[in-house]
This record gives sequence, structure tokens and C-alpha cells, in this order.
Amino acid sequence: MTAAERARALDAADPLGVFRERFVLPEGVIYLDGNSLGALPRATMPAMERAVRGEWGEGLIRSWNEAGWFEMAQRVGGKIAPLIGAAPQEVIACDSTSVNLFKLIAAALEMRSGRKVVLSEPGNFPTDLYMVAGLERQGLAERRLAPREGLLEALDRDVALLMLTHVHYKTGAMHDMAALTRAAHEAGALVLWDLSHSTGAVPVDLAGVGADFAVGCGYKYLCGGPGAPAFAFVAERHHADLAQPLTGWFGHAAPFAFSDDYEAAPGIEQLLCGTSPVLGLTALEVGVDLIARIGIERLYAKSRALSEFFLECLAERGIDLDLVSPDDSAARGSQLSFRHNEAYPVCQALIARGVIGDFRAPDILRLGFAPAYLSFADIAEAARHLAEVLESEEWRREEFNRRSAVT
Amino acid sequence: MTAAERARALDAADPLGVFRERFVLPEGVIYLDGNSLGALPRATMPAMERAVRGEWGEGLIRSWNEAGWFEMAQRVGGKIAPLIGAAPQEVIACDSTSVNLFKLIAAALEMRSGRKVVLSEPGNFPTDLYMVAGLERQGLAERRLAPREGLLEALDRDVALLMLTHVHYKTGAMHDMAALTRAAHEAGALVLWDLSHSTGAVPVDLAGVGADFAVGCGYKYLCGGPGAPAFAFVAERHHADLAQPLTGWFGHAAPFAFSDDYEAAPGIEQLLCGTSPVLGLTALEVGVDLIARIGIERLYAKSRALSEFFLECLAERGIDLDLVSPDDSAARGSQLSFRHNEAYPVCQALIARGVIGDFRAPDILRLGFAPAYLSFADIAEAARHLAEVLESEEWRREEFNRRSAVT
Repeated sequence: MTAAERARALDAADPLGVFRERFVLPEGVIYLDGNSLGALPRATMPAMERAVRGEWGEGLIRSWNEAGWFEMAQRVGGKIAPLIGAAPQEVIACDSTSVNLFKLIAAALEMRSGRKVVLSEPGNFPTDLYMVAGLERQGLAERRLAPREGLLEALDRDVALLMLTHVHYKTGAMHDMAALTRAAHEAGALVLWDLSHSTGAVPVDLAGVGADFAVGCGYKYLCGGPGAPAFAFVAERHHADLAQPLTGWFGHAAPFAFSDDYEAAPGIEQLLCGTSPVLGLTALEVGVDLIARIGIERLYAKSRALSEFFLECLAERGIDLDLVSPDDSAARGSQLSFRHNEAYPVCQALIARGVIGDFRAPDILRLGFAPAYLSFADIAEAARHLAEVLESEEWRREEFNRRSAVT
Repeated sequence: MTAAERARALDAADPLGVFRERFVLPEGVIYLDGNSLGALPRATMPAMERAVRGEWGEGLIRSWNEAGWFEMAQRVGGKIAPLIGAAPQEVIACDSTSVNLFKLIAAALEMRSGRKVVLSEPGNFPTDLYMVAGLERQGLAERRLAPREGLLEALDRDVALLMLTHVHYKTGAMHDMAALTRAAHEAGALVLWDLSHSTGAVPVDLAGVGADFAVGCGYKYLCGGPGAPAFAFVAERHHADLAQPLTGWFGHAAPFAFSDDYEAAPGIEQLLCGTSPVLGLTALEVGVDLIARIGIERLYAKSRALSEFFLECLAERGIDLDLVSPDDSAARGSQLSFRHNEAYPVCQALIARGVIGDFRAPDILRLGFAPAYLSFADIAEAARHLAEVLESEEWRREEFNRRSAVT
């Protein structure tokens, strides 16, 4: 059987195949960048129309009560909760991943006063490291980076917080959440997991591993739209002791008492800061509803099958690339990353053929396999294009070697 | 001439009358709450459709470059600039007002190291005071509140930052920005103006008064939609010395170098933190374009005329209410606030008649006069309804005296 034939058989047997039509997928495009910006659900535009024309245009200020805008942050957070093994009252949708990191790192440092070290790894997603740097320049944190094989050793009694990204944005390598959480707790530290590259593609069990804090992104596998609100998780056992510095009015116990003094709301809503971004939350909710409906276990099974099939197709054509992602699909997120000296022009040549992946400096070609809307036929085709780009060396063309200012 | 007749004449002569049809105004509603949530511009929905279906759905990740998403925060900021007397490169649209307050208060404290006091007034908008409290609990700030008549006296050599809201949210009273900025600078302090209740209704001249920092809201007079992104201003002379703690990847000099270490971008974009909220910025840009096109001087002139006409209509009917806003329209923003023991049920009775204003605890009826879309006929009608509610005492009805959980 050819790759295309096998793809047809796999698609025919795929229980998730029916969900493909719930997304807008542009003609002539094979989209392997859903780990950067998820595709548009078909239900998003009608929901935006209801929110804009109906709730904002007709309802005006009344919609804060009548359309449930006040509860949106909690409601959407509660829907994300089952995807990450949390209780609904432990998750809230708000601000950006970066801002949420700041809140939770600061909260952890206050809960472990006397300790100042935030331990992470070099090459973690930059914004995670930068937010620690922000607290460091405030004199409140001390950033310590140790390579993943040295993390346990670096977990000494100065560490207030272990902060890691579950699935690495560049390599797709997955940390052992349970073991690292346990080790951190044994060292008296708290743990913050960045789930940006996990949520909606890989099951996470925050309750099971006993995690303290987590954040994650709304615009990748959750399909919440460009720059969607992010989410934050705090284990319920910490709600009473929590204190975070971005004490805005939406996190107040009684925002409409307009008191001069801040009093934090009792639950997860104490993480709110400014007024909730209603239009962004509207789009995010549609994506979350759809992903939750498909179900995280089925998404994960398909995600593994997709990346395994991609490697199989490449191998069959005799393409031998330097895979920096783990070989075992159980040890990686929903992506494959290859190291190639000419990763940039290779990526551009693929894009010119309609296969959209991305380049991560300096030499990584990153292909994401969003299981909610990709077919096995997409995968076979994408593998064929990649093989042809490499065999033909068409990436050498001048047009693929011009760098844009931002990528 | 009756009030209605005079309203007709005023509307006929109103150069801004033609803009009313650029907004969606629900049938049977007179909307006096544009100072809380601005009305929906007719151009917003088509713009959202282009952004969602076209840029996100079809363009996918490519739209960061091809649809200009990377420049949106600066572009929208640059369009807000002329409304507040700033240069385009001094303003950026991002995060919420609360989060932007945190960045700029922290930056000011760092620029005035050795001083810790942030001076404001009691009864300032709560989130402004709460964000100082957040820095206070980090041990970085000391909050000092002085009533407005005591501000100059409280401006001693411990004050790092004077932080005030230009137009008071509850009373509409306007501070003398020039005099207070001068006094703060003479005391060696910096100044941060919250322009949430000014921008789009009242002209502000940040350059003229020599302001250091400002923030403002996107969802009030700028008509950017519920929970729209906010904006932040930093005078260009401070850009090189600025350091703010929310050092996320979008504020990095080279975000796509993915370096472990933070290096702030040189200009106003160093205020960015997480990924820009593209859908929220899309709606905000439409509102800003429209308000900027109408022009701030014309908006201000009409805003004063509207509130003066409202008071005239009430006086004519012999209604004598306790106005807590300044009598002189030159000394207030685009609103009138009345103190009334039964402000809550009076507000509810007005809403039942289709006149939407709002209640601010404990006893304020607040009516906003958004000049971009209100007519003098609206004003005459609203005054008639208010007079009738008071004369008939229909506010005593039980249905108007039930408090909802949030208002």
C-alpha cells in the first residue's frame, strides 16, 4: 500500500474525522502550525456576531449582567479544567500567559518567604524566563537555570518555585510532571507548570500529580484566536493563602462597592485584574467547547498516530532527518521538530507549497499535528512535500532565503 | 419654545449629527452610559468579520506578518495619541488599564529610587488605588492618599509619583493637569494620569503639560467594545531610562531570537508583555478611527452643550437635584452625577423607561453624555423621563428596589 492509500484507510477509521468540517481550513493549505495558532472553528464567527451585534450593540452595559459577561472568566476557565485534570473552580481565563506567570510566580515567592530562587531550565519558552527576570529586577526573585538532567540536583532548600513548561515549545519533549512535582514538594518548593503546548493535545492531570500552579495559552490547541486570553490554575488548597500583586478591581471581593482598599475575592477569581476581555473570551469559549467535546483522550491518541505516521512516510521515502523531538510518541507533545542547517529556507519552501509549519531559530523546522482537524491524508501529503523539497533542493532558491523582519 | 423644539433646532445645527448613524443604537433606548461602555460602531462587525474569517481563518499564522498583527499595538496606540496630545511613538494599546498602571507605577518607583510614596486621592477609581496596594504588598511602594484640596501639601520629598484620574469616575470633576504636573515636578516627583474618563470626550494635552506617564481605557468613549485593550503613554524623554517589571516576550528587543535573557525593546513597545490580543485590538481600532475622525475639539464642544442642555431642561421643569459634578461644564468631564438617597431605584426606574444611566454606590445617579452619538432630542427626552420618575415617585415600586448581585 502506498502512503496515500494507507492514509485513506486511517482516515476512514478515524473517529475524529467528523470534526474536521467544524473548522475553517483554507483551500490548498496543509496546516502544521496549530501549535502556534489554532485553526478557526466554524462556530466562532456566529458567536462573535451574537456577542458584538446582540450583546454589545443591543444589550450595551446591561449585558454585564444579562449576557453573563461577569461570569465569563470563571465559566471559560471551568470548561478548560477537565482538559488539565483540574476542578472547575480552580481555573480562570484571563490576561496573557505572561501576565498570569507573573501573578503566580509572585504568589509562590510570597508563600515560600525566606526562599527566593525560581528554578527553571535554559531554553524554556522565553516569556517564562523573562517574567522571572521581571521579579528579579524588583529584587523579589532569583532566577536559577539548570539543564533538565540537572534539575533534581538544583532543587535545594533555596528554591521557592520550580517552573517548567510541560511540553517544550521547540523540541516537543515532555517533562515527567508527576516525578518533578514530587521532587519539588520534597524539597519544600512549589511547582508551576506552563501547559501552553499541552492543553488540548495532551492529557494533563494536575490533581493527580498534586500541582500547585499552572498557566496555559488560549490560542494554540484551544483554537481561541490570535492573542486569545490565557488561563491560570491554582490548586484549591492554596486559595485561602494566595496573594498575587496584580490586585485589580475585577479580583476584588466586591468590585462594585468601590472601596479604597483592596480585599481579594475568596476563590480563583482573585486572579482577575482588569475588566474581562469579553470579545476575546467569546472566541476562546467556542474553541474550548469544541475541543472539550472531542475529548482529550481521543485527541491525544490521534495526535500520537499522526506524528508516528508522518515519520513512517518520511522513512519510506528514505528521508533521514535529525529529529530533536523524542523518538517515542509517548514522550513528546503533538509536534515533531527537526534540526537542519537550512531549516529557514526549507520551511519557506514548504510554505510555498502550501504546507505551513514554522521555523524556530536558529535551525529548527517545527511541524505541529493538531489532532482536532488534521487528516492522515494531510500527513501523507505533507511528508511527500517535505521529501520533495529536500530531494529537489528547491529550498536553495533565492526567494526562500530572504529573511523577513519578524517570523 | 419647548425643550423638544429647542432640541430640534440644536440637532439641526449640530455638525456631529451626521455621525449618529455610524453607531448602533437600540430602538427605544436613550443611552447615557457611554462613559461605562461605549456604543457599537457600525463598522465594527465588518472589521471583525475580516479579522476572523479572513485574517485568522484564511491567513492563519501568516497574518502576524501579512495582516500587520505584529504592528497593531503600536498602530492603534499611534491613533490614540492625537486625542491626548501625545506623539504616535509615545502610546501603545495593550493589556488592561489595571495592568498598565502596575507597569508604570513600578517604572516610576524605579526612576525615583530612594522615594517610595505614590500619592493619590481617596475615592480615586478603585483599580488605580488597588494597583498601588499590589506594589505596596511587594514592599516596593507606599500608598499615600490626600483629599484633592490637600494634594499640594502632601507632595513632599518622599513622593516618587503623583497618580490621579483626570476626570473623576464618580463626580466627573476634572483636575488641573497642568498645575498638578508642574507642582509634582517641582517636588521632584513624576506624574501618571489616568485618562479613562477623558479620552475621546475631553481634550488632553500630555505634551503641553509635560506629563510623564498616562493610561486609559479602550471601552468607554473610544467605543472599543466590552473589556477592550487599554492604552499606555510614556513621554519619549523617558523611553531610554524606562524599566517595567512585566517583561514579557512581546516587549523584547528581538522576540523571535528566543534568547534566555530579557532585553527591552527600545521604544514604547517595551511596555508590551504577552501576545497582542488581535481580536480586541481589531474592535478597538474601529472605535478609535471613528472618534479620531470626528475630532476631539468638536466632541468636547458638543459634550459641554449636551450636559448644559440637560440641566436647562431639568431646571425648566422645576427639578432641583443635588449635582455633585462641577456646575461649570469647563470643570467637568462628559457626565453629570447627582446625589440622591434613592439613586438606585431611580436609576432602575429610568432603565425601565429605556433611559440607561448608572448607579454608583452608595447614592450617585451617573449620567454620561457621549457626544459622538447622542442627540439633543435624546437629552430632552431623558430629562423628561427623569423628571417624571421623580414627580410620580414611581421609583418607589418594589421592582425597582430589588438589588441584583452585581450592578
